[in-house]
Amino acid sequence: MPEFGDGLGVVETRNVQLFDAKNPLVLTSGEQLDEVVVAYETYGTLNADRSNAIYICHALTGDAHAAGWHPGDRRPGWWDTMIGPGKAIDTDHWFVVCSNMLGGCQGTTGPSSINPATDQPWGLDFPLLDMADFVTVHRALCSHLGVTRLHAAVGGSLGGMQVLRWAIDHPADMDDAVVVAASSRLTAQNIAFSAVGREAIMLDENFHAGRFAELDTNPDVGLAIARMMAHITYNSEEGFQEKFGRDLQYGRSSRGFGVDFAVEGYLEHQGEVFLSRFDALSYLYLTRVMDYFDPFAAPDALDALRKDPVRFLVISFDSDWRFSTEHSRRIVRRLAAAHLPVSFRDIRAPWGHDSFLLTIDSYLATVKAFVESDHEFRYTAWERE
Amino acid sequence: MPEFGDGLGVVETRNVQLFDAKNPLVLTSGEQLDEVVVAYETYGTLNADRSNAIYICHALTGDAHAAGWHPGDRRPGWWDTMIGPGKAIDTDHWFVVCSNMLGGCQGTTGPSSINPATDQPWGLDFPLLDMADFVTVHRALCSHLGVTRLHAAVGGSLGGMQVLRWAIDHPADMDDAVVVAASSRLTAQNIAFSAVGREAIMLDENFHAGRFAELDTNPDVGLAIARMMAHITYNSEEGFQEKFGRDLQYGRSSRGFGVDFAVEGYLEHQGEVFLSRFDALSYLYLTRVMDYFDPFAAPDALDALRKDPVRFLVISFDSDWRFSTEHSRRIVRRLAAAHLPVSFRDIRAPWGHDSFLLTIDSYLATVKAFVESDHEFRYTAWERE
Repeated sequence: MPEFGDGLGVVETRNVQLFDAKNPLVLTSGEQLDEVVVAYETYGTLNADRSNAIYICHALTGDAHAAGWHPGDRRPGWWDTMIGPGKAIDTDHWFVVCSNMLGGCQGTTGPSSINPATDQPWGLDFPLLDMADFVTVHRALCSHLGVTRLHAAVGGSLGGMQVLRWAIDHPADMDDAVVVAASSRLTAQNIAFSAVGREAIMLDENFHAGRFAELDTNPDVGLAIARMMAHITYNSEEGFQEKFGRDLQYGRSSRGFGVDFAVEGYLEHQGEVFLSRFDALSYLYLTRVMDYFDPFAAPDALDALRKDPVRFLVISFDSDWRFSTEHSRRIVRRLAAAHLPVSFRDIRAPWGHDSFLLTIDSYLATVKAFVESDHEFRYTAWERE
Repeated sequence: MPEFGDGLGVVETRNVQLFDAKNPLVLTSGEQLDEVVVAYETYGTLNADRSNAIYICHALTGDAHAAGWHPGDRRPGWWDTMIGPGKAIDTDHWFVVCSNMLGGCQGTTGPSSINPATDQPWGLDFPLLDMADFVTVHRALCSHLGVTRLHAAVGGSLGGMQVLRWAIDHPADMDDAVVVAASSRLTAQNIAFSAVGREAIMLDENFHAGRFAELDTNPDVGLAIARMMAHITYNSEEGFQEKFGRDLQYGRSSRGFGVDFAVEGYLEHQGEVFLSRFDALSYLYLTRVMDYFDPFAAPDALDALRKDPVRFLVISFDSDWRFSTEHSRRIVRRLAAAHLPVSFRDIRAPWGHDSFLLTIDSYLATVKAFVESDHEFRYTAWERE
C-alpha cells in the first residue's frame, strides 16, 4: 500500500490570456476565437532541464483545481487522491499542470464567456469544439509555462480522451500517456444518456435558445435533471446499493412523491450543488465533443505515433458501465495492433465510472509505478489483481 | 420453434364500473374511491366449468389492449406475440382477460380522472396506491366476468409484480403464476432512475402541482424526458449498439445540438409518441408503487401460499439490466425457500428489459409449455438454453 504525504496545502488558480486577435485560436472546424483566457494551477517545480512536467486533463465537470486546497475549501481539489507530495503523481518530483478546458466554465473561455464582438455572452454562437481544440489550448499553456516536452499527460474519462487525442496527434510532446476510464468511441447508449441530458437543458423554459444569461435566468431544472441522470451512470448498481440500499432519507417513510428514499435525497443534492458550479452551455458543448470523438477512424490515424511512440497506460474499472472495460480494451487493441507500447489494467472496484476519482490503492500504485519507472514497456495484459 | 396462428383479428375494449359510492374501493392505505371504472378486453371463450381463464397484468405503460387489432391500428396489442390462436397463451383454449390497471390512463380510473367530489381531475389529490390495490380491482373484474378461479395470472415487469402480489395474497385464486422480468424489491439504482423521471415531470413549468389539466396544459417536456431516459434502461447497451451503433439520422452529419445520431432521433420519437398516449400523473403514481413494493418483507408473507401453493414460473432475460436476472433469482430463492413449486428460466436475449415484449421462441415456448402442462412442478434451476 502506498504511503502518501500530507498534501499540497494551499494552492491558487491563475489566469492567462493565451490567444488574442493577433494570435487567434484556430479551431478544427476552421472557425476562430480571438480571445481565449485559460485558468490553470501548477504544483511542484519545473526542473532545470524541463523534463519533469506532467499535464492533467480533467473530466466533464472538472476544473483547474486538481489538488491542494483553496482558502475556505471544504474539500481539496478533485484529484487530490492522485496528486501531491509522495502521492501517485508525486509533486516532490513532478511539475504538475492542470487547466480548465476550453469550453468550460471555471475560468477558461467557454460558451458563457463574453463574445468580444457583441459584448454579450456567446451562447449558442460559440463555435462547436473538437477534442483536438482542447489539446491546442493545453499545448499553448505548456509553451507559456516553458514546458517543451511532457513526461506524461494523464486524464480520466473525458480527460483520458484528451490524452489519447494529444498522444495521437502530437506524440513528440510526451513520453507517457495515462488514459483512465475513457473511450475512443461512444456507443449508442453512451450517446443516448448525454442526448437526454442535453434535451432536458435545451427544453427547459429558461434556456431561451442559449441566451438565458442575458435574460438573467438559468435552465436550472434541465441542468439538475441532466446531472442527476448522469450521476446514476457514474456509479454502479452495486455501489448505489451498498451506499443507500432502500434506506430512508428521514428514518421513517413519508410516502408520497417527495424525497423518501435516501438515494432520492442524494440525487436531489447532487443536482442542486451542480447548479452553483456548472454552466448549462458548457454541459452541451463538452458532452457533444465526446459524442463525435473517434480518433482511430482514419486509416492513417496512428502514423505519427508509430514514428515516435508514446508509452501508454490504459486503466479501466470492472464496475464501470458508463465507459466499460470493453472501451479500454478497444483502445488497447488498437494501439497494440499498431505495435505501440501499451500496458493495460482492469482495476477491481465496485464504485463504477467515478472510481477514477477515488482512493483505490492498486489503481494509484499502478499509475505511480508507471510514471516513475523507466522499464521497457510492452503490451502487458494485466488483468484483475 | 412454435408455430403460431394468424391472430385474433379485431377486438374491442369494454368499460365497466366496478366500484361506486355504495360499494367503494377500499385501498390498502385505508382511503377509498367511490367510483372506479375499468377498461378491459377478453379473448377466447370462458368454458362451461369456468376453469380456463388467464389474467394478463400489464407493465407501466401498457393498457387493456394486449392482443388483436383495433380498427385503424398500425400495430396489434402490446402482447400480441404472446396471446392469440395457437400462440403461447392460446386463445383457442384459454379465456384471456386484460385490464388497464388502477391509476392508469387508458380507460381505467386514475389520477387524471374526474374526482366526483369536485368535478375536476383528481390530480395529486388522488390517493397513493399499493400493488395490492391493483389486485383488488383485477379480482373485482374477475367476479364481474364470472371467473371464480384463474388457471393463471401472467405479467411482465410491473405486470409480474402484480402477479406476485396476487399469488401471495390470494393463492386460492389461481393454479399458476407467471412472473416475467420482474422484481420483488427495487434497488437504489432502480429507484434512482424512476425518481429522476418523476422529478423531470414535477419540475416541469406546466406541472402546476398536478393541476395541469384544469389549466389546459401538460408537462410535456418532463414526461418526454422521463420516457426517453427510461427507454434507455429498457434496452441493453448491446441492443442499442446493434440497432443504431453510431449511425447518423440523416445519412450525413449535421454537427450541432439537434438530432444527428440515429439513436437521438429514436429517443426523440419515443418521447413524442409517449405524450399522446400517456399521462404524467399516472407515471408518478404507478412508478411510485414499484418503489415501495417489497412483498417478502413480512416474516409471515408466504403463510397463505404455503397452505395453498401456486405453481410459479419465473423468467428473466440475461441482458436485462433494469430488473436483472438477479431480481428474478431473488424471487425464486424466496419461493423455493418456502418449499413452493417454482420453475426458473433465464432466457438469452440481447435486447434488455423490453425482451419480454418480443418474439423470442425459447421464451414463448417456455410460457406455453408451463401454462399447458400438468407436470409435477418442482424447483428446476434451468439456466440459459
